[in-house]
Amino acid sequence: MMKSIVLLGASGSIGTQTLDVINQHPDRFELKAFGVGKNIQKCREILSRFDVPVFAVERQEDAVLLQEEYPGKTVLWGKTGLDTLAASEDYDVLVNALVGFAGFVPTLMALYSGHDVALANKETLVVGGELINKALKETGRQLLPIDSEHSAVFQCLQTSRPEEVSRLIITASGGSFRNRKREDLRNVTVAEALAHPNWNMGAKITIDSATMMNKGFEVMEAHWLFHMPYERIDVLMHDESVIHSMVEFRDHSVIAQLGSPDMRLPIQYALTWPERLDLHQDKVFDLAEIGTLHFHRPDTERFPLLALAYEAGRRGGTLPAVLNGANEEANLAFREGRLSFLGIEEMIQRACAAHDIKEVTCTEDLAEADRWAREYVRKEMKGRI
Amino acid sequence: MMKSIVLLGASGSIGTQTLDVINQHPDRFELKAFGVGKNIQKCREILSRFDVPVFAVERQEDAVLLQEEYPGKTVLWGKTGLDTLAASEDYDVLVNALVGFAGFVPTLMALYSGHDVALANKETLVVGGELINKALKETGRQLLPIDSEHSAVFQCLQTSRPEEVSRLIITASGGSFRNRKREDLRNVTVAEALAHPNWNMGAKITIDSATMMNKGFEVMEAHWLFHMPYERIDVLMHDESVIHSMVEFRDHSVIAQLGSPDMRLPIQYALTWPERLDLHQDKVFDLAEIGTLHFHRPDTERFPLLALAYEAGRRGGTLPAVLNGANEEANLAFREGRLSFLGIEEMIQRACAAHDIKEVTCTEDLAEADRWAREYVRKEMKGRI
Repeated sequence: MMKSIVLLGASGSIGTQTLDVINQHPDRFELKAFGVGKNIQKCREILSRFDVPVFAVERQEDAVLLQEEYPGKTVLWGKTGLDTLAASEDYDVLVNALVGFAGFVPTLMALYSGHDVALANKETLVVGGELINKALKETGRQLLPIDSEHSAVFQCLQTSRPEEVSRLIITASGGSFRNRKREDLRNVTVAEALAHPNWNMGAKITIDSATMMNKGFEVMEAHWLFHMPYERIDVLMHDESVIHSMVEFRDHSVIAQLGSPDMRLPIQYALTWPERLDLHQDKVFDLAEIGTLHFHRPDTERFPLLALAYEAGRRGGTLPAVLNGANEEANLAFREGRLSFLGIEEMIQRACAAHDIKEVTCTEDLAEADRWAREYVRKEMKGRI
Repeated sequence: MMKSIVLLGASGSIGTQTLDVINQHPDRFELKAFGVGKNIQKCREILSRFDVPVFAVERQEDAVLLQEEYPGKTVLWGKTGLDTLAASEDYDVLVNALVGFAGFVPTLMALYSGHDVALANKETLVVGGELINKALKETGRQLLPIDSEHSAVFQCLQTSRPEEVSRLIITASGGSFRNRKREDLRNVTVAEALAHPNWNMGAKITIDSATMMNKGFEVMEAHWLFHMPYERIDVLMHDESVIHSMVEFRDHSVIAQLGSPDMRLPIQYALTWPERLDLHQDKVFDLAEIGTLHFHRPDTERFPLLALAYEAGRRGGTLPAVLNGANEEANLAFREGRLSFLGIEEMIQRACAAHDIKEVTCTEDLAEADRWAREYVRKEMKGRI
């Protein structure tokens, strides 16, 4: 069965790999529309490979330029461009590879306009898991995880019934600084933080991995995706990122998903589930060659943001939106050299402590908490690095 | 739904653990009948715990004795006793925990009399996989694996469709002598061979593990259970026996089953599949505590019986029956001090080389090859150790 796809975030790491998956199966997947940010060169490349009638870019000036270059196509721009693509009628599944809270509204619009969503944008669930689950319930649509850990859990869950699950075990590499003590993190550089030991990912998520905010987000994402209370979601440090995550069942059987660090696998699985298709990989996954796998418990004193994510998840309301908004602002500031690495943690902790938690009833509640958190962090950062 | 069980091999390691599983779920399982060998003390223990109207023992004299002790019950004996229990009408599933080729006929009789079989007796499939698969096809009954490796594969297979499987990966501890070189095996004792590093099992299978004949049998068992060609079944050495086995799918995703070395889990899963029930374990399975897992390729020069099993499986006919018959005879001779450890390999290799392979059309073809192999090994052993 042919599946038509709208891809948001097409120029990023997940976006590029999604295009590769689509390309490998022209008889199964069709790219219907896509959105990129400021990378209009990448946009041209995509248009040269895929015959797509409509696409969106971030800035109006880029849209004007590209409209002249491609007079036969519809060129959209800005948030409205993304929302328009997500809400359009004639496609099957939205692949949401946007970065940050910006991915939330397109997810919601895709669901409410009757589409399944393959979600690489974890912030959508971190911030607005409650509203997304409400939308899923009301629309009967599917939300399919693309994050490697959640795809692993999702694959493992196929063996049994939901009520037979006793625990989710999310594995964590520990990121770029996993072998450093806290006191050695004072003067680390952006380049050091961007050198992830196992995965080649976008800049924002690589920094989130180094602070383990990313793993905290994944716990929250798992909570919403799999309807699992926080006390039944564990994080397990696993140096080699070979076991992507595990599920323990009521009979103490543990099912794990393993493989190469290749995001095309979870992307493709999200698009083919419950089926599997061939996936071309240059190198065969071979545990004998890897030889040794290591595991240990996470140190939440070394990585306080992991513990903070559990707390924010448990307390709920607008707190997760603040956690995420503060992180987006602090993560960016670090990457731009305006904040130290340990300053990221500090900013997020301060924002969460200062926030007055409110109930969430609509998207605007989330957007307001997000704005508040960003503003709070910007103010706190003034005059310091 | 209540499931009634006939248990053959009730006094052995698997039998005892099956009784524990039945005991943990009195609302789900009922012991309908059982068979033991010569251990009549164990037989009395079982009768004191379970209200069972009929049972079988190996020797006639024990049957006479027990019939006097338990006048209200039906006491059977010998092979006919086992066959009668397997073929009786009023039960749901046969748990076959017999050791050796002796388990073959009861399996076949259970299937043809309309029962599912939970199989711990791997020799049944090693020797007569073709006839068993014919019986499964003709009767529409289920064969459920109890071996930990095959239960692991079976659990992993639940995630996907049969045609999506690309490879089975059977893990192997390497047994008691895995850290010894071939030249250090000349004078090993029975006691040393019985000290398995990870599993507490019966004597015959522990010796089979030390020679890796057991792993070879498991490859053959997997071939018949999961309809998988031999070139798509790999053996992977894994020191800790934590990953019980794995399945690789066409998209290179690998699903693995992990857990404590507790045979009650595969036993229970075979009885509850596709469901899972609670299983009481004293110790929680914790990868962080285990810390490290090791993997490497098997050395078929060090363990020639593994390669021989692949060959016997591929060549088929009566050769697997000879492989197994020779092994049963040589394994017993080693345990009784009549043959050296390396003599086991030699006897099996010689029997297989000397055998004139015939087609298998009925049980008698298998029984004849089995007798031939045992006789051959007994003759070869004369006057040597």
